[in-house]
Amino acid sequence: MTEIPTSHLDLLERPVYGVLGCRRPDGQLQANPMWFEWDGDAIRMTHTRTRQKYANLRYDSHAVVLIVDPENAFRYLEVRSVLKAVEPDPTAAFFDRLAARYGTNITVDDGPDRVILVFEPRQVSVQ
Amino acid sequence: MTEIPTSHLDLLERPVYGVLGCRRPDGQLQANPMWFEWDGDAIRMTHTRTRQKYANLRYDSHAVVLIVDPENAFRYLEVRSVLKAVEPDPTAAFFDRLAARYGTNITVDDGPDRVILVFEPRQVSVQ
Repeated sequence: MTEIPTSHLDLLERPVYGVLGCRRPDGQLQANPMWFEWDGDAIRMTHTRTRQKYANLRYDSHAVVLIVDPENAFRYLEVRSVLKAVEPDPTAAFFDRLAARYGTNITVDDGPDRVILVFEPRQVSVQ
Repeated sequence: MTEIPTSHLDLLERPVYGVLGCRRPDGQLQANPMWFEWDGDAIRMTHTRTRQKYANLRYDSHAVVLIVDPENAFRYLEVRSVLKAVEPDPTAAFFDRLAARYGTNITVDDGPDRVILVFEPRQVSVQ
């Protein structure tokens, strides 16, 4: 298992926005800010089966998650990952948990399409 | 030429940190916070010929630059780009200008390796 340096674990544990990078079928790269949760082994994000990032990750499972310290842009955790699982979230319970973690009261009504993207760290770089 | 929506031009003009995503020769994706300057046509970043991102971009010229509004993570500009030129910066004058733009007094003594990465926008997505 790829270890996360304890010096930077706070960036996974705090509700900081991550940036998810992935690759589009046309070869272009894509990056978006995302909510996430760290379960001790994997980075978990909420998404839907109908959106572009889902198609991208089905095409190429490589992904990178960058989390920059909001108080210091020179301190960051970069987690080069692969998508290892897609779990259904039919009641959007995981979405709701993330929304609360990030201090919002946003709700969704797309439960049937709602999924949890589970990213396995493969290589970690810190600054 | 790919237009930047005027609604989000401020994110290119303000000294906000960007995230540069690129692809490594082993297929993994990489992402790092970066200083940049927008010249009206291209996004310009300072880098050196000896570092990994330079090797990555020589291998695959696709890159993405994500700039998130520091005041609102739901507002961002994503610029899917290609590396169109690498210009020498032998006196690190461009580095110094970026350092000043970002309010630091960092200096470097790697002028002979110092380059300017010039990224041409190909597709833009905003939120």
